[in-house]
Amino acid sequence: NDITHNDALKALLTAKQKAEELNVVVNIAIVDAGANLKSFIRMDESFLGSIDIAIKKAKTSRYFNIATGDLGKLSQPGGIIYNIEHSNGGLITFPGGIPIINQNKNIIGAIGVSGGTIEQDRDIAIAGANAILNQLKN
Amino acid sequence: NDITHNDALKALLTAKQKAEELNVVVNIAIVDAGANLKSFIRMDESFLGSIDIAIKKAKTSRYFNIATGDLGKLSQPGGIIYNIEHSNGGLITFPGGIPIINQNKNIIGAIGVSGGTIEQDRDIAIAGANAILNQLKN
Amino acid sequence: NDITHNDALKALLTAKQKAEELNVVVNIAIVDAGANLKSFIRMDESFLGSIDIAIKKAKTSRYFNIATGDLGKLSQPGGIIYNIEHSNGGLITFPGGIPIINQNKNIIGAIGVSGGTIEQDRDIAIAGANAILNQLKN
Amino acid sequence: NDITHNDALKALLTAKQKAEELNVVVNIAIVDAGANLKSFIRMDESFLGSIDIAIKKAKTSRYFNIATGDLGKLSQPGGIIYNIEHSNGGLITFPGGIPIINQNKNIIGAIGVSGGTIEQDRDIAIAGANAILNQLKN
Repeated sequence: NDITHNDALKALLTAKQKAEELNVVVNIAIVDAGANLKSFIRMDESFLGSIDIAIKKAKTSRYFNIATGDLGKLSQPGGIIYNIEHSNGGLITFPGGIPIINQNKNIIGAIGVSGGTIEQDRDIAIAGANAILNQLKN
Repeated sequence: NDITHNDALKALLTAKQKAEELNVVVNIAIVDAGANLKSFIRMDESFLGSIDIAIKKAKTSRYFNIATGDLGKLSQPGGIIYNIEHSNGGLITFPGGIPIINQNKNIIGAIGVSGGTIEQDRDIAIAGANAILNQLKN
Repeated sequence: NDITHNDALKALLTAKQKAEELNVVVNIAIVDAGANLKSFIRMDESFLGSIDIAIKKAKTSRYFNIATGDLGKLSQPGGIIYNIEHSNGGLITFPGGIPIINQNKNIIGAIGVSGGTIEQDRDIAIAGANAILNQLKN
Repeated sequence: NDITHNDALKALLTAKQKAEELNVVVNIAIVDAGANLKSFIRMDESFLGSIDIAIKKAKTSRYFNIATGDLGKLSQPGGIIYNIEHSNGGLITFPGGIPIINQNKNIIGAIGVSGGTIEQDRDIAIAGANAILNQLKN
């Protein structure tokens, strides 16, 4: 129940292709079921600050098996898990990180994207996850 | 005035039993009066991100001798200790961490729980603390 | 292929019993196959500085599937992996950390012990690992 | 004078192919001229502890424009840069990290490999760097 390096490359390159279609440069990170970095690419001219954000989005998504944007709705001021971002060496809780699921509906990893708008980051992440199991709509 | 390892194990296992009754998988951490990790267990299939949160809830509770949920009410935007979460390597200030008190009303440690809803985490923490001195109601 | 929390507790308590037989107080940490903390206990009056060392011994052992003392032989000045201790947030490479293996010969986690002499720490770690699969001699 | 993401992927996949020929599983990291992570892959079943080491080898190599093994010769006890590993969040100074050079003899990045013997790691790193400019012998 762990994403293979071949699938991690496939998801990475599919996400990169989606970024190119959207004409945006991003950083893309994929972690395995243990939230360990599995594959990564930084597109030319993308934000320097997005390396860490892409990795943290992927890790955050796997830490709690949730889309980062959904976690962020709960961590707002007054929310039930306000400031959860201070845990685990820093979480990122805005859109762009989603779990990767296989055909047996097991979570085998997660993908994180940073560099575009949050809508672009999310759509690119979805494209990457859908390369493994086509299940999510933009 | 320091929780013993036998009591730390007792509180841990009582909290674990409560989690099993609630049918939820959590991470449970107990710190001593010095806010040092005393006992810990990670239940199978619980969130990866909850290890650090359970430990931080226990430490936060002992750092300030308060239930984490009560601290969180004061750290909101405009609150008197806004963003105190940035101190001490990261605090967690939503429910699930509470002080452990002995028969002489001394605080001898704290317990932190993470993995369920905040209500479940709090109830499990209370069950653990009550194993040492039965004083708190859900 | 991941140690269960029940087995992690069993290994922990067996190691603790061994420490009591040896009349030494230690910290004992068990990590799962992902090198994540699974169970922990700090015996009364043990060194404060041994909490982190016990956890780092367990993680180091699983990071490289090796007894920490064997890794330390290679990381000496002039050794082939001199100063590897600077990786992964700090490794501990003297004895006291060993992999935990199941009946199918899979590594399912690791145990780390700190607080006694390195011989005591190693023997206590072995006792803990042997609670899962009796295979190691002191 | 910065490695492109296409070249970083090319070097990564060439290094991966070399690892497969050597029948060893490794982690491979490539950084750009700014020592920022550019591409990465973690092969299935490779050491958990090698993720960080591969990245640190690549960064170390670019930080000082040197093969990590050569730096390690100088950082031994009594050496001119003894314990330089304490800088920059942790360096790795044994073989497996080398600069990547382009046709104009400019250093455009570096590659770091971890998971095999130090000879294997170095040979895999050389294979990756040679994918950009064929200049190094094993």
